[in-house]
Amino acid sequence: MADKINGIDIRILKLLSKNARLTYKELAEILGTTRQRISRRMDRLERNGVIKKYTVIPDYDALGYVHVILGITVKPSVSIDEVISTLVEDENIKIVQRALGSHNLVVHIVGPKDMKELEKIIAEVTKKIPGIDKLDITFITETIKFEVL
Amino acid sequence: MADKINGIDIRILKLLSKNARLTYKELAEILGTTRQRISRRMDRLERNGVIKKYTVIPDYDALGYVHVILGITVKPSVSIDEVISTLVEDENIKIVQRALGSHNLVVHIVGPKDMKELEKIIAEVTKKIPGIDKLDITFITETIKFEVL
Repeated sequence: MADKINGIDIRILKLLSKNARLTYKELAEILGTTRQRISRRMDRLERNGVIKKYTVIPDYDALGYVHVILGITVKPSVSIDEVISTLVEDENIKIVQRALGSHNLVVHIVGPKDMKELEKIIAEVTKKIPGIDKLDITFITETIKFEVL
Repeated sequence: MADKINGIDIRILKLLSKNARLTYKELAEILGTTRQRISRRMDRLERNGVIKKYTVIPDYDALGYVHVILGITVKPSVSIDEVISTLVEDENIKIVQRALGSHNLVVHIVGPKDMKELEKIIAEVTKKIPGIDKLDITFITETIKFEVL
């Protein structure tokens, strides 16, 4: 984490956030620099963990899935770290985040459209979380904007 | 949307969700097929909107940003479409999603770590949304798992 993030890094990240498949050559041309420099900076950003992942944003609906967000508040006595370690193993759970504010745990599930099956999956997930004080279940129906940076 | 999504599409999507920078050649080798076929299927998935975007998942904290999720419930009388059309223009707002359940609108903000500045940005965003019945503000502090498919 010690390496400084500079202006070129930010510009590379912004370009990749719009299209992660840009080649070193394309990035170099847009930014008026060399492929070598782009490759070196990207390697560094990956190593530092500034870039966590290159991924795809799919249309879950078209794939037959439903995207559900669980906003969870667990009682102060519960060890969130222990809860998280059981959740990360679950294949239906795609995102696990610690948080502060209205919720202290955010869990994303990608499941089948069939509501009965989905209910079972959500019940299995919540069963793994002891001491839930508050649970907000939100079903994403449409993504109108999705940017990263 | 009419084109059928088949087994090879799903396998391509799963591989790209783990690494969106895999080349046609690499995908073809892993899946035991040709670059031409991979390229054709990916073109189709992009055209169909099944692939919405290739992007990068950054470490916001390392970049000096905070990731805030607003879970919003607006009164039934409010036109969510109108609200959304004003929100999508806002540079601080990265994600806008319609939803059902605990919230009917999900908005992600990526803002500065400075709490006073962040407060101002959140206030500006919420001012654009008339008839808020419930507002949950959640600050993401750590992403432990992030998968897409």
